[in-house]
Amino acid sequence: MTLLDFDSDRLADFAAQVRKEYDDLKARNLKLDLTRGKPSSEQLDFGEALLALPGEGDHVDADGQDVRNYGNLKGIREIRELWAEVLGIDAADIIAGDASSLNIMFDLVTWSYLFGNNDSPQPWRNEEKVRWICPVPGYDRHFTITETLGFEMVTVPMLEDGPDLDAIRELVQDPQVKGMWAVPMFGNPTGITFSEEACRELAAMETAAPDFRIVWDNAYAVHTLTEEFPPIVDIVGLAAEAGNPNRFWALSSTSKITHAGSGVSFLNSSQENLDWYLGIAGVRGIGPNKVNQLAHVRYFGNAEGVRAVMRKHAGSLAPKFDRVLEILEERLGEYEVARWTRPEGGYFISLDVIDGTASRVVELAKEAGIALTGAGSSFPHKDDPNNRNIRLAPSLPPVEELEVAMDGVATCVLLAAVEKLGA
Amino acid sequence: MTLLDFDSDRLADFAAQVRKEYDDLKARNLKLDLTRGKPSSEQLDFGEALLALPGEGDHVDADGQDVRNYGNLKGIREIRELWAEVLGIDAADIIAGDASSLNIMFDLVTWSYLFGNNDSPQPWRNEEKVRWICPVPGYDRHFTITETLGFEMVTVPMLEDGPDLDAIRELVQDPQVKGMWAVPMFGNPTGITFSEEACRELAAMETAAPDFRIVWDNAYAVHTLTEEFPPIVDIVGLAAEAGNPNRFWALSSTSKITHAGSGVSFLNSSQENLDWYLGIAGVRGIGPNKVNQLAHVRYFGNAEGVRAVMRKHAGSLAPKFDRVLEILEERLGEYEVARWTRPEGGYFISLDVIDGTASRVVELAKEAGIALTGAGSSFPHKDDPNNRNIRLAPSLPPVEELEVAMDGVATCVLLAAVEKLGA
Repeated sequence: MTLLDFDSDRLADFAAQVRKEYDDLKARNLKLDLTRGKPSSEQLDFGEALLALPGEGDHVDADGQDVRNYGNLKGIREIRELWAEVLGIDAADIIAGDASSLNIMFDLVTWSYLFGNNDSPQPWRNEEKVRWICPVPGYDRHFTITETLGFEMVTVPMLEDGPDLDAIRELVQDPQVKGMWAVPMFGNPTGITFSEEACRELAAMETAAPDFRIVWDNAYAVHTLTEEFPPIVDIVGLAAEAGNPNRFWALSSTSKITHAGSGVSFLNSSQENLDWYLGIAGVRGIGPNKVNQLAHVRYFGNAEGVRAVMRKHAGSLAPKFDRVLEILEERLGEYEVARWTRPEGGYFISLDVIDGTASRVVELAKEAGIALTGAGSSFPHKDDPNNRNIRLAPSLPPVEELEVAMDGVATCVLLAAVEKLGA
Repeated sequence: MTLLDFDSDRLADFAAQVRKEYDDLKARNLKLDLTRGKPSSEQLDFGEALLALPGEGDHVDADGQDVRNYGNLKGIREIRELWAEVLGIDAADIIAGDASSLNIMFDLVTWSYLFGNNDSPQPWRNEEKVRWICPVPGYDRHFTITETLGFEMVTVPMLEDGPDLDAIRELVQDPQVKGMWAVPMFGNPTGITFSEEACRELAAMETAAPDFRIVWDNAYAVHTLTEEFPPIVDIVGLAAEAGNPNRFWALSSTSKITHAGSGVSFLNSSQENLDWYLGIAGVRGIGPNKVNQLAHVRYFGNAEGVRAVMRKHAGSLAPKFDRVLEILEERLGEYEVARWTRPEGGYFISLDVIDGTASRVVELAKEAGIALTGAGSSFPHKDDPNNRNIRLAPSLPPVEELEVAMDGVATCVLLAAVEKLGA
């Protein structure tokens, strides 16, 4: 029997019980944090060897260049080759940067706005309006970039196998629609991976804007929670086959593989797109941190080395995800006051509570010393029109803390639900 | 007797001799490069220990934060404190970034153009025109940034103790003049250090634009060629005293102290300026490479550690500068066909040849296998109106190659001169 089917007496009893649980929770004076998708110390330790790499005397790259000196805007060949093997693409189509792919995304979109990209009739700032497709729920930092630039963010829902393609096909008829955010594998926060059909359609669809771009943020390309590595779609290759070679800026990084603050980022795209980007990047600077790139080559060895590290991460993360899902099921399952994703990779569980109660759940949790990501943060302008979505980030705390926190969150979900039902 | 005083017979004899020297030079099939201010391998070796730092097990900063994880947009406290001590400022007024201060300069100017800075009535892109003061000769990569943004670059001459202040005072009466480039110590390419009086005047002068900024690129703050470290002016403090706290964006980095491609960059400015910058930097990314910052802390130890490294660099560079100056004096001194700077720090010697012959000198050198920085490269749009300036970068080649190259350059200067004189 679900909470909605309870008669008023039973609901009153249940509400009293939940209120008591919540009071007990508050009395524990917890201080727990489920806000951000940060790796745990245990995970960061997997990459500890990097802190002493490349090591004294090891400073020449495969092309005979001294990585300590200036230059090489594309990044060193061997890290590009290694990562191209991970992605199943040609090393000529990828460049390696500093630690943050978010930095590159910001620059790509900002420079298109400022200067126009290689297919732009004019800089986007000269357009009357720039509209941008935002699958929701999605990654808050993506939306903050397009918000900062003043774009009109148009949401489309995430479905089971990718964003709503019908809605997207309709939107791209508008020449003011210049681009779209996408996290194609183990997406933030849904955990959804785009189907190959969705990828093909995004690559092939006709767009009114000749300079339309999809920021393909493949942040979780190898971030499995199982022993399986799903195939990585060569989206740039697909787009070229479909006659739209410049459609995708495909990003990835080692941030959640080695060290979150000091990894290597990558941009895979068409030669024309890379040339455009490098043209401006070469004004902005002289080259990326190649010492760190060489250190990563030494650490991984090869693409299989990357997958070996990812198996360790899965071993650390999967039990945490499992416990969150178990607690949600145990505490909330029978009442039908929430639904949640069961991701096979990535960093998040997306929790939908009763419409109108997400912000109340976050508030209750905060009062009980459990920090959750702000309600609505997975939507543009942090505005979830249904006030229902909460992003859970299980990676950082140890599993014992996570259990306490999730049990507390479940209590908050129930309390917000009974409040909503007037009990 | 100078070349200009030679009678025609003597000039003809001299020209024949120079032509023979040049033919001999070409016959050697050299392949030498004096183009860029790159540190030599010997210099890069000084920082070799960094390639194994911070070392396994060393990943917590002075505030107890794990440097391997996301976060800390300002950079870790201990590198900010160390560098603040080098500069003689308060650590609260400086933030530490990734490897490149050029990156930060590009962002500061570009974001002012795009969004306006914290004192802007409107984004600079909405101004009818943006004008920018460029002391010449100056740093080519500075000029490329303002060229890329379409600013009108207004040149002012570098005098013995800084840029022409009278010209600058006049220019800043114009509200379209939004900023200025400056390399205040051991400047690129002149080697000139601004006098304290010049610093005070730049800090105190009234400007029509409320959002006027000086990009204070103190790239060579501790880069002495002698045993002396000249005092570093606290320009941000001076400006605050003068009532213009937000006037300066002061940049510096360890690029030419540790490793050119993988050092740490710094931005010293007012709190308001830093807050404005961090506000956008926090959209662009999550934080800098803190592992590399901690590695630098371990490597230097303290500010005296920085100066100890710089003494090693001086020991490596000073003999190269001395040989260049000796060869210029030996080969060109008596003929008065050139003048050159005698810097006490920095990376360059600025060579002025007979008006109209700089590009010919570079061309002759190229034909003889000696790559020089393009004539005019120290001027906006690479346009030296007198076609007289050549930037010499003695740091990279070993001293034996440098001697051969400089002797060849001297031959080219003489050949271009006799050609110019019609001989």
